[in-house]
Amino acid sequence: MSYKVAVLPGDGIGPEVMAEARKVLTEVEQRFGLDMQFTEYDVGGIAIDNHGCPLPESTLKGCEAADAILFGSVGGPKWEKLPPNDQPERGALLPLRGHFELFCNLRPAKLHTGLEHMSPLRSDISARGFDVLCVRELTGGIYFGKPKGRQGEGEAEEAFDTMRYSRREINRIARIAFEAAQGRSKKVTSVDKANVLACSVLWREVVEEVAKDFPDVTLEHIYIDNATMQLLRRPDEFDVMLCSNLFGDIISDEIAMLTGSMGLLSSASMNSTGFGLFEPAGGSAPDIAGQGIANPVAQILSAALMLRHSFKEEDAASAIERAVSKALAAGYLTGELLSADKRDQAKSTSQMGDYIANAI
Amino acid sequence: MSYKVAVLPGDGIGPEVMAEARKVLTEVEQRFGLDMQFTEYDVGGIAIDNHGCPLPESTLKGCEAADAILFGSVGGPKWEKLPPNDQPERGALLPLRGHFELFCNLRPAKLHTGLEHMSPLRSDISARGFDVLCVRELTGGIYFGKPKGRQGEGEAEEAFDTMRYSRREINRIARIAFEAAQGRSKKVTSVDKANVLACSVLWREVVEEVAKDFPDVTLEHIYIDNATMQLLRRPDEFDVMLCSNLFGDIISDEIAMLTGSMGLLSSASMNSTGFGLFEPAGGSAPDIAGQGIANPVAQILSAALMLRHSFKEEDAASAIERAVSKALAAGYLTGELLSADKRDQAKSTSQMGDYIANAI
Ligand SMILES: CC(C)[C@H](C(=O)O)[C@@H](O)C(=O)O
Ligand SMILES: CC(C)[C@H](C(=O)O)[C@@H](O)C(=O)O
Repeated sequence: MSYKVAVLPGDGIGPEVMAEARKVLTEVEQRFGLDMQFTEYDVGGIAIDNHGCPLPESTLKGCEAADAILFGSVGGPKWEKLPPNDQPERGALLPLRGHFELFCNLRPAKLHTGLEHMSPLRSDISARGFDVLCVRELTGGIYFGKPKGRQGEGEAEEAFDTMRYSRREINRIARIAFEAAQGRSKKVTSVDKANVLACSVLWREVVEEVAKDFPDVTLEHIYIDNATMQLLRRPDEFDVMLCSNLFGDIISDEIAMLTGSMGLLSSASMNSTGFGLFEPAGGSAPDIAGQGIANPVAQILSAALMLRHSFKEEDAASAIERAVSKALAAGYLTGELLSADKRDQAKSTSQMGDYIANAI
Repeated sequence: MSYKVAVLPGDGIGPEVMAEARKVLTEVEQRFGLDMQFTEYDVGGIAIDNHGCPLPESTLKGCEAADAILFGSVGGPKWEKLPPNDQPERGALLPLRGHFELFCNLRPAKLHTGLEHMSPLRSDISARGFDVLCVRELTGGIYFGKPKGRQGEGEAEEAFDTMRYSRREINRIARIAFEAAQGRSKKVTSVDKANVLACSVLWREVVEEVAKDFPDVTLEHIYIDNATMQLLRRPDEFDVMLCSNLFGDIISDEIAMLTGSMGLLSSASMNSTGFGLFEPAGGSAPDIAGQGIANPVAQILSAALMLRHSFKEEDAASAIERAVSKALAAGYLTGELLSADKRDQAKSTSQMGDYIANAI
């Protein structure tokens, strides 16, 4: 099989962790007899520098011609003062999501055995572990709803955004959450603010309807404010969390931080044809860029997600995941995952990549 | 001085903790020569049972005739299946906030020395303590913005909510945050989602303008998703968090949970005339209602906030707060604040009230 991958390394640590993902994918190609064609395109800050905008036409065309997008990370202090619309993150990610209608965002967050001490949670809570999958709607809600803008003048000037959801939009993301739950612990917690938002009232209705088609899955509803709290007290009681775009933005970041190891987390954003964008959950970390110390695992795991979800190459995907687990279990770790007294055992970005590629 | 207080005990533990707040206020009246007239009104579930709606006209009239509202808590399983608009919490709190234009919500959350073990945070993080004040805009944003509703049919049926903020609304809540910061650690962190929301872009602009009038206060901006994360890692670096209505709902609950002792937290909701509603941060806790074990401290502290903010009786307010601190420092605690092995030393709701009243 032959696949075309649009590679968008981006800014900060993006290029260096992407190099390791490429290394691992090259190994996977040989082992599993796959043929992948990689083409690199600028995105984010570097695209602003080279082309004047965070998502140049050439990059978009390249993505259109590809079977999947492997995304690094974008943004950094250099572009922070630009107007919001022109900034790397917003200016690249939102148009990509909109253009390819990547409505389904999967953000898994698991507290790995042996890494409990990384979690900011109290030891008796982190000792119980957790494994949460946030299923986030990614092309609707208040991110894209119209009208959005400003009107009026002086003190009366006002800004407005519209949160908007149709039954169809809620239905398709809810199905994905329930299907995912069937392959996990069979529980969906739908996050909303039905005591305030009309969108959330419709959300609950549709989710209840979809639930009828999945009698083996338990459904619970929780308000976003309460969800934020309960995740701190009993993260182990959640399985799949089904969220609208805005609430998923918050919940997925909260669960990522609860693992304490963002460098291990990746996410998949897909449309209904299986086309997708795969990226690490963490940011471009400009403070550590170029030092060869960034953790490439999240980027490598995003390549595994690409193999699984866009290319249906389950064997290759799980081979990568097993190789990563082997590295972690062996205590083969980058510095940020080691306690201060063990920091001298830290592996570099490329050492991690080598180890994982060899373990395939 | 003579003050009229509308007392709205509500449901669950509301009435029993309110009784203790009344006990303490009676003591305060004598010590400080104040004259307070208390009139009780039904609100929430009990108002649904007695009058058919969560905020009866008689209760609203009573609040209008008063100088402040002392609110208990509302809601419980009995009323959970009602349509969202008719439910105790939404049906009572939102109309009260709207009717009296209680635009300013103050939610302090402090990790008390000696209660670090209650926090769900890792011990090295909780050991550093934290003291955060969430200043939440309470009558604008997506809670009240029009249009809000539904349209269309079948799969195309959609729901919509409007987030809306004017310069005037942002300006007045921002000023309160900066003034509060002047009396604290002189730092305001404004929470928004300016990379997505037009409202947040205006929010940042206005907050930047207001900041110019407070050169002694440091201002930072943070995205809501990142705020949710950073609070888990370094809560001690936050002082005043300035939030819109929806983001404040989330942040205030997160910081409350981070203390691990919601029974100690109260909040003030005020309008520009000094009129206010004062309530505990926790809920009606129907599971422990009627057992005499609920912690009355949050309700008692909400009475202190009433004295301070609505009646400008600072001496009386701080006398209550000192009495509460004395109880906590003495280890005089209700059961939920004690570790399992000390649970037999737990004080009852009324013992707590007695102790604090005596300590005034
Ligand atoms: C950059 C920003 C627009 C984006 C979002 O809010 O979706 C980011 O926070 C994310 O979660 O991918
Ligand atoms: C009951 C609900 C409408 C309310 C809110 O969202 O404001 C509550 O969560 C609160 O924070 O006081």
